[in-house]
Amino acid sequence: MDEKLKDLLRCVKEGTTSVEEACEYLKDMPFQDLKHTKIDHHRAVRKGMGEVVFGEGKTFKQIVDIVKAMREKRLDVLVTRIDKEVGTKLLKKFPEGIYNEDARCFYIKEDMAVKGKGMILIVSAGTSDNKVAEEAYVTSMFFGNKTEKLHDVGVAGIHRLFQNLDILKKARVIIVTAGMEGALPSIVAGIVGVPVIGVPTSVGYGASFGGLTALLAMLNSCSTISVFNIDNGFGAAYYATLINRL
Amino acid sequence: MDEKLKDLLRCVKEGTTSVEEACEYLKDMPFQDLKHTKIDHHRAVRKGMGEVVFGEGKTFKQIVDIVKAMREKRLDVLVTRIDKEVGTKLLKKFPEGIYNEDARCFYIKEDMAVKGKGMILIVSAGTSDNKVAEEAYVTSMFFGNKTEKLHDVGVAGIHRLFQNLDILKKARVIIVTAGMEGALPSIVAGIVGVPVIGVPTSVGYGASFGGLTALLAMLNSCSTISVFNIDNGFGAAYYATLINRL
Amino acid sequence: MDEKLKDLLRCVKEGTTSVEEACEYLKDMPFQDLKHTKIDHHRAVRKGMGEVVFGEGKTFKQIVDIVKAMREKRLDVLVTRIDKEVGTKLLKKFPEGIYNEDARCFYIKEDMAVKGKGMILIVSAGTSDNKVAEEAYVTSMFFGNKTEKLHDVGVAGIHRLFQNLDILKKARVIIVTAGMEGALPSIVAGIVGVPVIGVPTSVGYGASFGGLTALLAMLNSCSTISVFNIDNGFGAAYYATLINRL
Amino acid sequence: MDEKLKDLLRCVKEGTTSVEEACEYLKDMPFQDLKHTKIDHHRAVRKGMGEVVFGEGKTFKQIVDIVKAMREKRLDVLVTRIDKEVGTKLLKKFPEGIYNEDARCFYIKEDMAVKGKGMILIVSAGTSDNKVAEEAYVTSMFFGNKTEKLHDVGVAGIHRLFQNLDILKKARVIIVTAGMEGALPSIVAGIVGVPVIGVPTSVGYGASFGGLTALLAMLNSCSTISVFNIDNGFGAAYYATLINRL
Amino acid sequence: MDEKLKDLLRCVKEGTTSVEEACEYLKDMPFQDLKHTKIDHHRAVRKGMGEVVFGEGKTFKQIVDIVKAMREKRLDVLVTRIDKEVGTKLLKKFPEGIYNEDARCFYIKEDMAVKGKGMILIVSAGTSDNKVAEEAYVTSMFFGNKTEKLHDVGVAGIHRLFQNLDILKKARVIIVTAGMEGALPSIVAGIVGVPVIGVPTSVGYGASFGGLTALLAMLNSCSTISVFNIDNGFGAAYYATLINRL
Amino acid sequence: MDEKLKDLLRCVKEGTTSVEEACEYLKDMPFQDLKHTKIDHHRAVRKGMGEVVFGEGKTFKQIVDIVKAMREKRLDVLVTRIDKEVGTKLLKKFPEGIYNEDARCFYIKEDMAVKGKGMILIVSAGTSDNKVAEEAYVTSMFFGNKTEKLHDVGVAGIHRLFQNLDILKKARVIIVTAGMEGALPSIVAGIVGVPVIGVPTSVGYGASFGGLTALLAMLNSCSTISVFNIDNGFGAAYYATLINRL
Amino acid sequence: MDEKLKDLLRCVKEGTTSVEEACEYLKDMPFQDLKHTKIDHHRAVRKGMGEVVFGEGKTFKQIVDIVKAMREKRLDVLVTRIDKEVGTKLLKKFPEGIYNEDARCFYIKEDMAVKGKGMILIVSAGTSDNKVAEEAYVTSMFFGNKTEKLHDVGVAGIHRLFQNLDILKKARVIIVTAGMEGALPSIVAGIVGVPVIGVPTSVGYGASFGGLTALLAMLNSCSTISVFNIDNGFGAAYYATLINRL
Amino acid sequence: MDEKLKDLLRCVKEGTTSVEEACEYLKDMPFQDLKHTKIDHHRAVRKGMGEVVFGEGKTFKQIVDIVKAMREKRLDVLVTRIDKEVGTKLLKKFPEGIYNEDARCFYIKEDMAVKGKGMILIVSAGTSDNKVAEEAYVTSMFFGNKTEKLHDVGVAGIHRLFQNLDILKKARVIIVTAGMEGALPSIVAGIVGVPVIGVPTSVGYGASFGGLTALLAMLNSCSTISVFNIDNGFGAAYYATLINRL
Repeated sequence: MDEKLKDLLRCVKEGTTSVEEACEYLKDMPFQDLKHTKIDHHRAVRKGMGEVVFGEGKTFKQIVDIVKAMREKRLDVLVTRIDKEVGTKLLKKFPEGIYNEDARCFYIKEDMAVKGKGMILIVSAGTSDNKVAEEAYVTSMFFGNKTEKLHDVGVAGIHRLFQNLDILKKARVIIVTAGMEGALPSIVAGIVGVPVIGVPTSVGYGASFGGLTALLAMLNSCSTISVFNIDNGFGAAYYATLINRL
Repeated sequence: MDEKLKDLLRCVKEGTTSVEEACEYLKDMPFQDLKHTKIDHHRAVRKGMGEVVFGEGKTFKQIVDIVKAMREKRLDVLVTRIDKEVGTKLLKKFPEGIYNEDARCFYIKEDMAVKGKGMILIVSAGTSDNKVAEEAYVTSMFFGNKTEKLHDVGVAGIHRLFQNLDILKKARVIIVTAGMEGALPSIVAGIVGVPVIGVPTSVGYGASFGGLTALLAMLNSCSTISVFNIDNGFGAAYYATLINRL
Repeated sequence: MDEKLKDLLRCVKEGTTSVEEACEYLKDMPFQDLKHTKIDHHRAVRKGMGEVVFGEGKTFKQIVDIVKAMREKRLDVLVTRIDKEVGTKLLKKFPEGIYNEDARCFYIKEDMAVKGKGMILIVSAGTSDNKVAEEAYVTSMFFGNKTEKLHDVGVAGIHRLFQNLDILKKARVIIVTAGMEGALPSIVAGIVGVPVIGVPTSVGYGASFGGLTALLAMLNSCSTISVFNIDNGFGAAYYATLINRL
Repeated sequence: MDEKLKDLLRCVKEGTTSVEEACEYLKDMPFQDLKHTKIDHHRAVRKGMGEVVFGEGKTFKQIVDIVKAMREKRLDVLVTRIDKEVGTKLLKKFPEGIYNEDARCFYIKEDMAVKGKGMILIVSAGTSDNKVAEEAYVTSMFFGNKTEKLHDVGVAGIHRLFQNLDILKKARVIIVTAGMEGALPSIVAGIVGVPVIGVPTSVGYGASFGGLTALLAMLNSCSTISVFNIDNGFGAAYYATLINRL
Repeated sequence: MDEKLKDLLRCVKEGTTSVEEACEYLKDMPFQDLKHTKIDHHRAVRKGMGEVVFGEGKTFKQIVDIVKAMREKRLDVLVTRIDKEVGTKLLKKFPEGIYNEDARCFYIKEDMAVKGKGMILIVSAGTSDNKVAEEAYVTSMFFGNKTEKLHDVGVAGIHRLFQNLDILKKARVIIVTAGMEGALPSIVAGIVGVPVIGVPTSVGYGASFGGLTALLAMLNSCSTISVFNIDNGFGAAYYATLINRL
Repeated sequence: MDEKLKDLLRCVKEGTTSVEEACEYLKDMPFQDLKHTKIDHHRAVRKGMGEVVFGEGKTFKQIVDIVKAMREKRLDVLVTRIDKEVGTKLLKKFPEGIYNEDARCFYIKEDMAVKGKGMILIVSAGTSDNKVAEEAYVTSMFFGNKTEKLHDVGVAGIHRLFQNLDILKKARVIIVTAGMEGALPSIVAGIVGVPVIGVPTSVGYGASFGGLTALLAMLNSCSTISVFNIDNGFGAAYYATLINRL
Repeated sequence: MDEKLKDLLRCVKEGTTSVEEACEYLKDMPFQDLKHTKIDHHRAVRKGMGEVVFGEGKTFKQIVDIVKAMREKRLDVLVTRIDKEVGTKLLKKFPEGIYNEDARCFYIKEDMAVKGKGMILIVSAGTSDNKVAEEAYVTSMFFGNKTEKLHDVGVAGIHRLFQNLDILKKARVIIVTAGMEGALPSIVAGIVGVPVIGVPTSVGYGASFGGLTALLAMLNSCSTISVFNIDNGFGAAYYATLINRL
Repeated sequence: MDEKLKDLLRCVKEGTTSVEEACEYLKDMPFQDLKHTKIDHHRAVRKGMGEVVFGEGKTFKQIVDIVKAMREKRLDVLVTRIDKEVGTKLLKKFPEGIYNEDARCFYIKEDMAVKGKGMILIVSAGTSDNKVAEEAYVTSMFFGNKTEKLHDVGVAGIHRLFQNLDILKKARVIIVTAGMEGALPSIVAGIVGVPVIGVPTSVGYGASFGGLTALLAMLNSCSTISVFNIDNGFGAAYYATLINRL
């Protein structure tokens, strides 16, 4: 398959194949098979963004295999949901990478171009929601977005939010993480005119049911927000990136 | 039993029994038995408030029996959860009463004394929550509280709430009804320093699950609010009355 | 307040106030109070879009009051979730309007400008999901987006979807409605590179639990999609509009 | 900001600003930003009570930072939901504090004034509910309320409750914690005439679903009680304090 | 089969087969097949009680067929869960029967022998629970038990229960029906020393979830009670009969 | 497209295209577009079975359009989930059809060949489960299977099942419908050695939660059975057909 | 209080107080207060059975205090839900006791009289349900019942049950424990004519939801069984004892 | 019993009993009683397949006893759900066995005959679903089926599935394991014409609720698939075997 790829690129170089044709062609090419995982190098082409490894439930060896395969293609790579131990071991194998403990993410990023058109703002309701917010932050940075944070502005002291209207109004897309009653995204979406993405977090106890209450609250928002799965900071930032590149 | 009651009151009148003793005594006296229902006349004494009839699931005849029994003792009476048809029929039987269609309540109220110490404010998030708010309003009035309303100030346009800070700050107890994501009581409790009572309403669709989402959201409020059952406007106002009389 | 508004606009006309300043100012002005409802005329300014009336649970008189108030300001108006009877009565009152029975929407639209930058595509999984798709369609049109539809391409015969790749690839934002197992948005998002919005519908029986299964499936999508409440075609189209105007 | 605060207080001292004006002013002043947390010193003013730190999910360092910041303002401080290990370490850092193991609370309290008007009674159904009751007890004491306890009077031997009517009747507010079927608050509220606050506990097994059954039972009480989240002893005591200060 | 049955009974009469042997034999004989239903005449023998027809979901014709088949064997018959219309039509067909509207039961009972050893007491918490209590009452009577009722003694006014200790202590088995928080069976079982059967009812609203809350509460009772399905008054009385015949 | 189809079939007839090739080809041909529905004529080829119309939620006109389109191709057609009124109207339009009221199915069947290799047995637990069993029966017959029924053999009188072992042992596939506790499929699968398909029905009340209990019970069977959605008699019979044709 | 008790007993001994009077009197006497626990010595009189200690959630010291207090009155004592470590430590303190590891119970039993009238049979569906069955067994023995066991006769091989009909027919009360689909109690109750008690166990995985499925199945049994909480072997045996003593 | 068995087999050998008669006879013979477990040797005959030991919740000694008892009869044996530690210990006791760590299965297999008629294909959606797929694979092999695997072809990159149509079309039965939104079995069943078995896995987080979402999605599939309990790879393969032997 690599041979085909080279031929194709040679044709592009020589001008016998246009970029558009090559691009179309690449979208139909198969994936790379590591036995345990089929890496989808072409997603980068098809979706315009690099492969991301969901680290949870994968062995260290599996993760290393995937990262190695991607590094051989000189692709940037992001591994999410890995604890400190795995992160530290990855750093030894790939010293060019960075491990962010709060976000539980490891990444190698060489392409430093800013790709999104505006700024993505990550807002969190309370100190404990920061982890999910941080996962969103790292992901958003990784995909080349200008990204800012606003922490600990939950509804119990809503004046803290109103003192930050400036930054809210500068964002092109806003991600709001909130646990417990999950009300903050509704408030934010009632103030701004850009798309707001709500990410319920599993922060809470008793009748929070591991984030279910925040999830349901966001789905029933009387402001209009879009919602992601509990603790899915990555997904929200990926989606914000899609919007920010439009 | 009525004989005993008369004797007792005669003694109070003649001074051979103190008011306190009589009061103690009354708390132990039995209830009146209408076969289908045991009316608890002494709750008025024990709890300091008159009997209220939960109309849902009772036949018209049962309701009339109870109202009649109470009117014979010259007690004020409130019947909740009855539709327009029953309300209209009650008005014919008891023309001294009032039927409030929004609140789905019928009541006869002769004792016009104001009994609570401050004002109870009823706040509702949206137009559709008004029914529950109205039940709370009628109940609060019935129990002798100074009562005011603030409608349609939900979180999708939170500035509507902030333009009403004056009335919020005048209240001694605040009842907030809200459906959908149920966020309003949290916001209100983050602003004022008096007890806030949250009443989730069954307003919503899909993942609101008949008010369950609003209920869960209020129970997980990061402000401190107390919570009642879905659509229980009566209970909230009864409870606010207990607080307002302290 | 109307006086203030006129003054402001006069100043804008005369050039003594810039458009930007006026815009800022308007965002802080209060709402119009119809007693039962507080109309938020400024949302049009704040969020860049006109007021929409959620018809469910409102009386005919309440709806007429709101529509009238908005027509007096010459604002376009959309009323959602109203059945044929209410729709027909509205048509008599406001003959310049249109009632779409499938979508259960009534609207008056004079501003025919296209405002979004690209095309919004509404995809539905099965014949029965069309209602929700239609609500999304009407809403998207109402807000000035170029909008197209693709019906009945669910996963039981997935080749029907692949025969429509052309239209999928032309869209700037895609809304996918699906009931039962709710798998279609995942498939679509695995194919295209633009934001996909999933709307679970209440179509199904037994363990579909009124759309809960489709909702949960979409929240757990291994593709990255954003999710709205069950049957919330309006919300999805409103949100797609926000994205399409970026 | 501290400068402004000092100026303000100087003016109050000199009489050029009335206490009321200063109080109003303070309510609008911003919070203190520790980066990870925005301490809301003014809640003490706005709500009339000091800041409380919810310890669960915070690192030891974060807790120490907050406590230190508050001690520098000479404010009393309560940290809830911390296990013995953290409590012991806090005691070393702040030897003037107290750690209550049953309640899982650490607090520093210099202001010994009694502030509530009456007595708050904490009732628990069974031995295992004591932890939540103890959290409520410590919180109530911390906020300056006269507080008493009544343990192990659950409904399986209801005569134990009736032998304690005296203390029940002396309370101004009653908090009742109960797990399993959560029936005790209903019984208590059927006896007394003051506000009763129900706190479901996670005590139980099988179909208690971590306290959900007790929560639902309390929400459906045919007596009128207000309800808090599962195990939320702190919230109940905070709310009882609000009532007790009226 | 009827021939076999006659032979058998003739043998019993003539003494060539003992009653015990015949009884054993009968337990193994097959059922009567009405095509749509297989009547189990021998349950009367196997379980010691007559067949009962669960009327819900059966057509009038099916019910008539079954009742007729049983009357031909001169067996007593009880039909549960039928509304007034069906009941009235059955009365015309079988004028020897009785239709109890509250209990929604029709029955023909010729065997008037008292068969249980003691009295079964049916206790209901509120007026609205009476329907389920009445189904239990009719069933208990039908099976030949001495049966008494105690209505409207719920936990909101627990003194009403304590004024009826006499009758509680006379019962051999007690059935307690309760909706809402379902606490009454626990209280009763804490007082008496005989088996208490809890029957949750669907009485309530909001978070009662059609009786689920009462069901869960009873399953978590800290007294020891046995529990039946929501509204299953028949089952409870059948089971009480089994106990009362021991 | 029809032209292509004809060409293809002509080639098959003339022998220039083998049956296998034509068959492969047909699998890739597109569907017929009725605007509101895309009929998948090729499913008959791809899956070996004719199209079935899920009638629920479709208008009469939509159903007629689909049936007509299929009759024009001379295909057999089955419409499920339609009530008596729609069924009667269909009979008028298509007098060659049959409407089965119990099964709520209409069908036109000209191909009378038996296609499955063995007999499919439909077992139902109680009289009320018959509707779902009947839907399965009609479906199984429609697809050309030899089909038999065994009704009312539920676990309350398990001897009724054991008296029918003969027919159980003759079946090649067994479908068992059961509501309430849903135990019958487990028992049957413990006896026979062929695949057993469990179909939970919505028969029951209270904690049956519309069939959820039966569904969960079947999924947890300690015998090995496969499970379908609540009331999905059609799906079970379709699946049994797939097995019976192997 | 102990003095009163002695006086009373002396009177009984001397014949000046009848046993009945003394018994009545004792029922009204208060409980013993260990500070953390109020021991209800009189339950033995009121309910006819000794106190049982629910060990889960109690500290070792609390358990020892209670056991000691009861031993001083020479009362038999049963402690349930304690793991091996606690059991072993109790054995050292009270060498006259027995610890049963399977049942997770410790007990001291000096009164060896058989008190129930018949035999209680404990049936378990699978090997893994034995723990709950064993708790029931130990409890039943402790309360003086003749008790037998029948293990591993679940519905996957229902012939194993039928080969044990003899023992089933000898029992006066039957307790059936079952996890997964929880069908066994229904089968047993369809066979015998005595009261059957179902105890769902938490055995299973996936959609067994910790025993919820078995619980729901038993509540929906079409045989008539009474149901207890998940894993509540103790409660079932206590209740069986109440029945067996009638 | 073993004597009877030998006699029977001798008769078969000598021709005085036909194989069919012996087979019938064996089906009625009892099981072997190991005290803690009743081994059902005859299931092999009754169902045509050997006994399988569900290892979860059994002690090492219990497992060894069962394996030993089966090896003495020279029966093949499969133990599922055992972790590496138990597996390793079993290998020491029974060195002729194999422990598969991914599948968490131990088995001894001497009978190498291929018994099913076609190939069973095991498809898994993602890397993390492999465990359940592997359990299905080992089980399918153990029962003598030709078995193949297809891993990591989930819906996020659906082209990976379409590149494997060849193997899909060769299978006689297909098992598809999928977590998260559980959509893959629907897609597969929309493509092939053989029975597809869906096995939801507990892979996922947040609103996947331990596999519940995937389970519900599969039950609502608009393709026709049969469904098993969450993570029940064994059951699916056992069932596929039953089909494959038809």
